[in-house]
Amino acid sequence: MVGSVVAAAAVGDALEGFGNVKADPLPEEFVFDPEAAPAALNDAENGAGGAEDERSKAVVLGRNVHASCLDVTEPDADDEETGEREAYMASVLAKYRKSLVEKTKHHLGYPYNLDFDYGALAQLQHFSINNLGDPFIESNYGVHSRQFEVGVLDWFARLWELEKDQYWGYITNCGTEGNLHGILVGREVFPDGILYASKESHYSVFKASRMYRMECVKVGTLVTGEIDCADFEKKLLENKEKAAIINVNIGTTVKGAVDDLDLVIKTLENCGFKDRFYIHCDGALFGLMMPFVKRAPKVTFKKPIGSVSVSGHKFVGCPMPCGVQITRLEHINTLSRNVEYLASRDATIMGSRNGHAPIFLWYTLNRKGYRGFQKEVQKCLRNAHYLKDRLRDAGIGAMLNELSSTVVFERPLDEEFVRRWQLACQGNIAHVVVMPNVTIEKLDVFLNELVQKRSTWYPDGKVQSPCVAADIGEENCACVLHKSRAI
Amino acid sequence: MVGSVVAAAAVGDALEGFGNVKADPLPEEFVFDPEAAPAALNDAENGAGGAEDERSKAVVLGRNVHASCLDVTEPDADDEETGEREAYMASVLAKYRKSLVEKTKHHLGYPYNLDFDYGALAQLQHFSINNLGDPFIESNYGVHSRQFEVGVLDWFARLWELEKDQYWGYITNCGTEGNLHGILVGREVFPDGILYASKESHYSVFKASRMYRMECVKVGTLVTGEIDCADFEKKLLENKEKAAIINVNIGTTVKGAVDDLDLVIKTLENCGFKDRFYIHCDGALFGLMMPFVKRAPKVTFKKPIGSVSVSGHKFVGCPMPCGVQITRLEHINTLSRNVEYLASRDATIMGSRNGHAPIFLWYTLNRKGYRGFQKEVQKCLRNAHYLKDRLRDAGIGAMLNELSSTVVFERPLDEEFVRRWQLACQGNIAHVVVMPNVTIEKLDVFLNELVQKRSTWYPDGKVQSPCVAADIGEENCACVLHKSRAI
Repeated sequence: MVGSVVAAAAVGDALEGFGNVKADPLPEEFVFDPEAAPAALNDAENGAGGAEDERSKAVVLGRNVHASCLDVTEPDADDEETGEREAYMASVLAKYRKSLVEKTKHHLGYPYNLDFDYGALAQLQHFSINNLGDPFIESNYGVHSRQFEVGVLDWFARLWELEKDQYWGYITNCGTEGNLHGILVGREVFPDGILYASKESHYSVFKASRMYRMECVKVGTLVTGEIDCADFEKKLLENKEKAAIINVNIGTTVKGAVDDLDLVIKTLENCGFKDRFYIHCDGALFGLMMPFVKRAPKVTFKKPIGSVSVSGHKFVGCPMPCGVQITRLEHINTLSRNVEYLASRDATIMGSRNGHAPIFLWYTLNRKGYRGFQKEVQKCLRNAHYLKDRLRDAGIGAMLNELSSTVVFERPLDEEFVRRWQLACQGNIAHVVVMPNVTIEKLDVFLNELVQKRSTWYPDGKVQSPCVAADIGEENCACVLHKSRAI
Repeated sequence: MVGSVVAAAAVGDALEGFGNVKADPLPEEFVFDPEAAPAALNDAENGAGGAEDERSKAVVLGRNVHASCLDVTEPDADDEETGEREAYMASVLAKYRKSLVEKTKHHLGYPYNLDFDYGALAQLQHFSINNLGDPFIESNYGVHSRQFEVGVLDWFARLWELEKDQYWGYITNCGTEGNLHGILVGREVFPDGILYASKESHYSVFKASRMYRMECVKVGTLVTGEIDCADFEKKLLENKEKAAIINVNIGTTVKGAVDDLDLVIKTLENCGFKDRFYIHCDGALFGLMMPFVKRAPKVTFKKPIGSVSVSGHKFVGCPMPCGVQITRLEHINTLSRNVEYLASRDATIMGSRNGHAPIFLWYTLNRKGYRGFQKEVQKCLRNAHYLKDRLRDAGIGAMLNELSSTVVFERPLDEEFVRRWQLACQGNIAHVVVMPNVTIEKLDVFLNELVQKRSTWYPDGKVQSPCVAADIGEENCACVLHKSRAI
């Protein structure tokens, strides 16, 4: 690693003019070992933790861990002639590419569809495509992709049944931006409203309440991970004087649980909140899968909801994170009113916006269409059931929510195994999210390895299934106590 | 265009199961004419407008303009066999690519360096690279590029003179995210602090104050666009009881003005704000150019500043928007404390984060190094002076701030010309931002066209230079009244 003192001196030289900057030599040993990095105790992608919070916070605060780092080094004056620099960088990239292939192969824990082919779009990487600002207001900056973006937005507005002249939306950078936007719209509609969200909501929902200085009430959940509407009712009745802004999960992060939208609406109405509520649907993953599941309750703007967001890099698959946000046009006008400082409507969270993401989405939607997605959803659900059944056959407690392709099971004892398969863990449980790129073959490799390794994690090879009844319910648990009843 | 009623019915079918979905036919005439789109009256990338605000707001509110849109259509059942769909999409992309080449050629108004070659990185587009969460806390998701990100962050921390173990930062999605982050950190350090920003600050600064429910005081500017520290002092003294959070512009959006950081700090101290202030430096464009300008006042963490952000897609050049945010590690601990719901440090605004952007930045920093940037900065400043001089020679009022490559001049009367050269306009003025890809040859073509066209914009060919003294100062104005003194 380049010492920061030495490097700072080099910067100092460079600042002064044309001084002959002596570049730091390239590190002799090329530092590149992501495996050596410590895994987070809990993963940032996951929602709220339990008792572990304090422990892990104590670990990460006040540190700035350079677990693995590829230094930027100053080129030598003669680098251009010798070509040494180019060779060095090509070798870095080749090694990196190889590690990505490997990592992509062993990936099960995150809801990212890694199966895409955007070769036809490689030609566009040469352009700085930027959809700055509002997708419906043309900018003078010509190198944009608004025509693709609006096409994609129209598709989603149709999916969620909002007329073309009544919706507003944009393509975001990720699921978090969608939640930040939906909750901000809710707050602008009801400035004194209280934010309600189940405790298994994505962490960005709670981040929003803090950022926006909103009162936030956490609602309990059922063992499935769904919002507990009895608790919701109790909390609503305690705060009857203030409007309600509700985050409804269409697939929670950890358990893939789908909140019962109809029951949430009924609870609000029963508690006397008629017309005094705003619902944001966080459809990060399942918002796009659910429309293709026959029995699923429908997410639609024909119901009194205010906004829906989904991620684009999850079920659709995209080289970089992105998302889609759709809301009612009337709310955007609320958001944009009284903004004295702005010359034009400023309704997005971000300013400059990635213009490549809309093209990736447009390309996939056009190629696959409703029919294509439907087939993939069915494949995912089928494979998820296969995984759950095979886990249970092996005596491992596992849960799969009805509308979900997220299989939850006991957390493997070996952190190296967890890392290798990139499982997202929380407390005692881990999960696999079955995406279109997760085949039966891949699941079999995983299952066989899990069963084989598991037998070595216990003393004397005597496997003792841990009790995960509190996490996934007694009927799904395979511990000594619950086994007989469960499986 | 696909009628939304018809389309909604098609969705309905698809929802029900395997019904034979009749796809809408492809539109006969392929709608693709970005030129036909109306230009915004004021551009979203720009800062606060003046008298035009109300007018343009009235125009954009309550509408959802589908100026140009490439519909997503359902593939026909036999598309796979006929290859028609593939051919259609290839033709869309080819046309789009051609339009991008054209648009990129005639681009002067936005501070984006369009001159980059990331061919070596095309191989990475096949991967879903995601640096979710904190760059210094490893995630179990293996397909990330944290090792590149941390390398880039180290480089910027060195540039701004903050020790490796004392900084925290991340690669953002754009300049706005940097400002949102810096101001949020300021608010968490001083929860009751007042946000001060000059009226020529980027609109995201004012958006932040609204989002975060912070009191915001707008400070006047000099004709150069710099913050007026006399006005700043007056406003500080009116609010002595509350801490101050200040946004300092290292290059304003419209005039490229650099606020005098040293004078801002002195003013704070003179007003008795010692230890009760937080400074965020919005270095969107010039934050990266200034270190290479000899006479420029230094942006450094050796001064009492809290955070600095720059855009990555501007001076460096990148296919998609991105930015770099650096702050003091101690502040991040403030931000992360008392977050009961999180299992781990959650200090970024976004959750899932684009893992490609860090690799683009790493690649360019490694290839160009300090020396390379220095050369490019000098070229930009030289070419900006050339443009300003040539404009003045032609009798056109123009201003160029000393540390800037943004040339401000009278707004061309013809909107088509403005669109063709993608000039960013505000009120009576337009600007050209001279980036590394803007050559003397390109400037000559622009200048010749401007001078030639300009002679046709006035009745009888009698050019009357408008008075822009209020915008850029009497000494830079070329109107009848100020001409003699000015040029």
